[in-house]
Amino acid sequence: MSGERLIYMPLGGAGEIGMNAYVYGYGLPGQERLIVVDLGVTFGDMDGTPGIDLILPDVAWLAERRDRIEAILVTHAHEDHVGALGLVWDKLRAPIYARKFTAAIARLKLDERGGVPDSALNVVGAWPEVLEFGPFKVGFVPISHSIPESAGLVIDTPAGRVVHSGDFKIDPTPVVGEAFDPALWAEIARPGVRALVCDSTNVFSPHPGRSEATLADNLAALLREAKGMVVATTFASNLARLQTLANAAEASGRSVCLLGRAMRRMVETAIATGLLTQFPKTISPEDAGQIPRENLLLMVTGSQGERRAAAAQLSSQGYMGLSLKEGDTFLFSSRTIPGNERPVARIMNQLSEKGVDVLDDAGGRYHVSGHANRPDLETFHDIIKPQFLIPMHGEHRHLREHMKLGEAKGLRGIIATNGMMIDLSGNAPKVAEFVEAGRTYLDGGVLIGGMDGVVRDRMRMALNGHVTVTLIVDEKDEPLGEPWCELMGLPSKGRSNADLVETLEAELGQFINRAEKRTLRDDEKLERELIRIVRQTSQAEIGKKPEVTVVVSRLA
Amino acid sequence: MSGERLIYMPLGGAGEIGMNAYVYGYGLPGQERLIVVDLGVTFGDMDGTPGIDLILPDVAWLAERRDRIEAILVTHAHEDHVGALGLVWDKLRAPIYARKFTAAIARLKLDERGGVPDSALNVVGAWPEVLEFGPFKVGFVPISHSIPESAGLVIDTPAGRVVHSGDFKIDPTPVVGEAFDPALWAEIARPGVRALVCDSTNVFSPHPGRSEATLADNLAALLREAKGMVVATTFASNLARLQTLANAAEASGRSVCLLGRAMRRMVETAIATGLLTQFPKTISPEDAGQIPRENLLLMVTGSQGERRAAAAQLSSQGYMGLSLKEGDTFLFSSRTIPGNERPVARIMNQLSEKGVDVLDDAGGRYHVSGHANRPDLETFHDIIKPQFLIPMHGEHRHLREHMKLGEAKGLRGIIATNGMMIDLSGNAPKVAEFVEAGRTYLDGGVLIGGMDGVVRDRMRMALNGHVTVTLIVDEKDEPLGEPWCELMGLPSKGRSNADLVETLEAELGQFINRAEKRTLRDDEKLERELIRIVRQTSQAEIGKKPEVTVVVSRLA
Repeated sequence: MSGERLIYMPLGGAGEIGMNAYVYGYGLPGQERLIVVDLGVTFGDMDGTPGIDLILPDVAWLAERRDRIEAILVTHAHEDHVGALGLVWDKLRAPIYARKFTAAIARLKLDERGGVPDSALNVVGAWPEVLEFGPFKVGFVPISHSIPESAGLVIDTPAGRVVHSGDFKIDPTPVVGEAFDPALWAEIARPGVRALVCDSTNVFSPHPGRSEATLADNLAALLREAKGMVVATTFASNLARLQTLANAAEASGRSVCLLGRAMRRMVETAIATGLLTQFPKTISPEDAGQIPRENLLLMVTGSQGERRAAAAQLSSQGYMGLSLKEGDTFLFSSRTIPGNERPVARIMNQLSEKGVDVLDDAGGRYHVSGHANRPDLETFHDIIKPQFLIPMHGEHRHLREHMKLGEAKGLRGIIATNGMMIDLSGNAPKVAEFVEAGRTYLDGGVLIGGMDGVVRDRMRMALNGHVTVTLIVDEKDEPLGEPWCELMGLPSKGRSNADLVETLEAELGQFINRAEKRTLRDDEKLERELIRIVRQTSQAEIGKKPEVTVVVSRLA
Repeated sequence: MSGERLIYMPLGGAGEIGMNAYVYGYGLPGQERLIVVDLGVTFGDMDGTPGIDLILPDVAWLAERRDRIEAILVTHAHEDHVGALGLVWDKLRAPIYARKFTAAIARLKLDERGGVPDSALNVVGAWPEVLEFGPFKVGFVPISHSIPESAGLVIDTPAGRVVHSGDFKIDPTPVVGEAFDPALWAEIARPGVRALVCDSTNVFSPHPGRSEATLADNLAALLREAKGMVVATTFASNLARLQTLANAAEASGRSVCLLGRAMRRMVETAIATGLLTQFPKTISPEDAGQIPRENLLLMVTGSQGERRAAAAQLSSQGYMGLSLKEGDTFLFSSRTIPGNERPVARIMNQLSEKGVDVLDDAGGRYHVSGHANRPDLETFHDIIKPQFLIPMHGEHRHLREHMKLGEAKGLRGIIATNGMMIDLSGNAPKVAEFVEAGRTYLDGGVLIGGMDGVVRDRMRMALNGHVTVTLIVDEKDEPLGEPWCELMGLPSKGRSNADLVETLEAELGQFINRAEKRTLRDDEKLERELIRIVRQTSQAEIGKKPEVTVVVSRLA
């Protein structure tokens, strides 16, 4: 064992919320056998990544070491843990392991995004079942979260035991799925834990987390007292919430109708895998249209304001023949993820215009978080008593705050962000190496590098508009006519109140008429000058410098 | 007076937070004499208005009735009440009235954005001073808000008294400027108030608002206990906050340095107009660099994460020779406006990476709002006892909730959104007319219409990328060579792993070689076909349809 080491390296999720991807390795430096924990996505936005459908970790480092990867383990079925799997699997080609429901959801995503052979996806049982992956022995330990069957991982290595919490909360009554079991975790901790790699997302939430079960009464009262139709939106994967809402619907004599593909698919999968056994029979949108509104609960997708989801559709023109009106109630049984405030507010205002009463999480009556809050993190630290604490899953400020929280109670550790390879073998965790840990974008149907410049060019066009300049030069290097301009995304008139196109063409024409032969002969110089004139003239006329495409055609 | 009427019409601010612009009129229908209350801006974002510098109300309706405008009244000096004045004044050319400090700030903005002659800007005294504007008698009544010298307007008309609250809070101890005076407002209400047009922004805040003065102890403790340099950011116009911070700095032996042009300018103007009399002498950034960090408080601009402001600069490379390091403290003495969460979080994470401790408003220790909360609105309703309540300044959901709040206590009123002209003369407010109430964009140096399509084209380029296609056709309508393509904001390779440009040019070339004469002769048809091929080929290759500019050059 001399010279062998245990390493941990996040490739995503440590420096952001979302896009989780963690690597563990054991062996001689540079020859470690590897396991990958989670391969998730995060979502783009108009602000920073216009046109990008999904953002995933750059797996180039892993792909180059493909022969050393023993397995890919998935802790739970949320997009930010499983969503990238189908997109990058063919670069890694390692076997995937997950619990039953997680594997079923993963299978749906794998089929949508790329293809992974059936044989690559393996269903594993829960702890105390343990699987061997090279030098690693790994158990999937049930832990409560906002989706059933979440697992924390117990990773035994020759250098000691690592607990990888996965996303979790401390919930003794999670409604659906397994409760957090302190005795079980104490048992796991007993032999000693070298490192706890721990969820950090809610470290700034000061109060102890509340159980999913605490919502039942509030939701029941809401559905009982509401006069018209009730629409509730939450993440489709929050099956406990769907169950609680369905129970409340039954108690108040409301039929349940599921709207949105993700919602239907998630419930179907949960019933098929035996996770939901008490879910009431749902009705179709067509049937829903036939029964009195006060006897209806719609559960719909789109809690984050997604434009094409059921919630947004219902707030505007309606969805599948159903529409809302004065006296109806719309419940956001969800938290708005930072960055989504505007689309969510847009829906709320559209509902307000229809006279629909909107309820949201303000006050916490209708939503609880799926992550461990500050005091719950301390509880977990106390149970696991790790030699090292390594905060994971959070922006830098979350990781740092989590580390400070641990340090206040005497824990040692390190803040490891994406691409930092940490050696966990010694007396203190230390940085072994910095690895390039970038982002890959799914752009339409193509994967591109986050630093390729494609998105940068798009943002520039969005901010500055675009001008096309064409010029024809004949066989004798004489301009044939004058340059032409076409605008896109620019005002048609400038400060002088003249047509911007005409002003640009006049300036460009003047330049061309005076240009020396050697300029007209030199494609690069000519292009540079034409761009300069467009940008300079535009700056004077409209106060901004557009992006410019120049095409000089030379007659042969 | 028979047939004459009193009208109210928002042109901005009723359907959004920001961009306030309200019109009152009195006279025969279609001949009303008009006053305009506030002409503010709101800010664009990458999400919906990329490249747009400011958004302002479309004043076309007012401009067409310019001869009927008696005056433009400004309630206070916030951007969303005064920011559009300089940009549109030449279309209206009515005299402007504001109190002293407000006028001084307005003057700075007028000089920056357009030009307004000195003679057009008039300083008015506070209530009980009253000015006559045609059929209106108007008084500027001091009311507390987060900027000094805010005024509610008392507007007397032949149809009765209107109270226009402006932005306000109920603050008995505002630190700088005038306290809310319940006795004064009761006095104003005594003759009877026909309509209260009232701020709605904080209607969803359930607890009574807190006074600015309640922050003094918390801020003093923070500055006393902090070990290193302290940086505080807040809106520059919140002079009370700056005063409280300065007092705390003095008490803890810290010198104050102001960073950011808006911060310095606001303090200078407040001192010049006699509003700040106790403000300590500030030091320059150069001097700040010379004294121990624990003896420093920097007050900086950029609380909303603005990229070029002092806060963002300090969180990255530093600002004016000053930089932050481990042990320093950064305070957001502010609330993050919805939509700005991401840029603010970016700053927080950059500070975290430097080891700087970040404090924000979570918990409410270091910030209070400048607007009346729900119970405060009820208090104001109870004081004014209006015949009608007209909620203003808010998104639709705020206006509706405010109306419901009033109705619960027996008030009648109407939800009036931008462009709804309300007749306030009768026994109930009623909609008299719907007026086109659009938005105007300041784009670089040019004003463009919100519906001009310029921004739509930019967003399309941002989402889909751009392709330029050029083709030369000779005198006999024969193609001269093949079409050329240039990409911008698009991946260079598609699914087939071939160069996207080459694939596109091959497809276009094939089409051109087979095209009939009558297609090659028909510019429109040719362009349409070339665009179709680019979009279709791109959809197959990269899964998205780019924006396309086609330039066909015909040799004469």
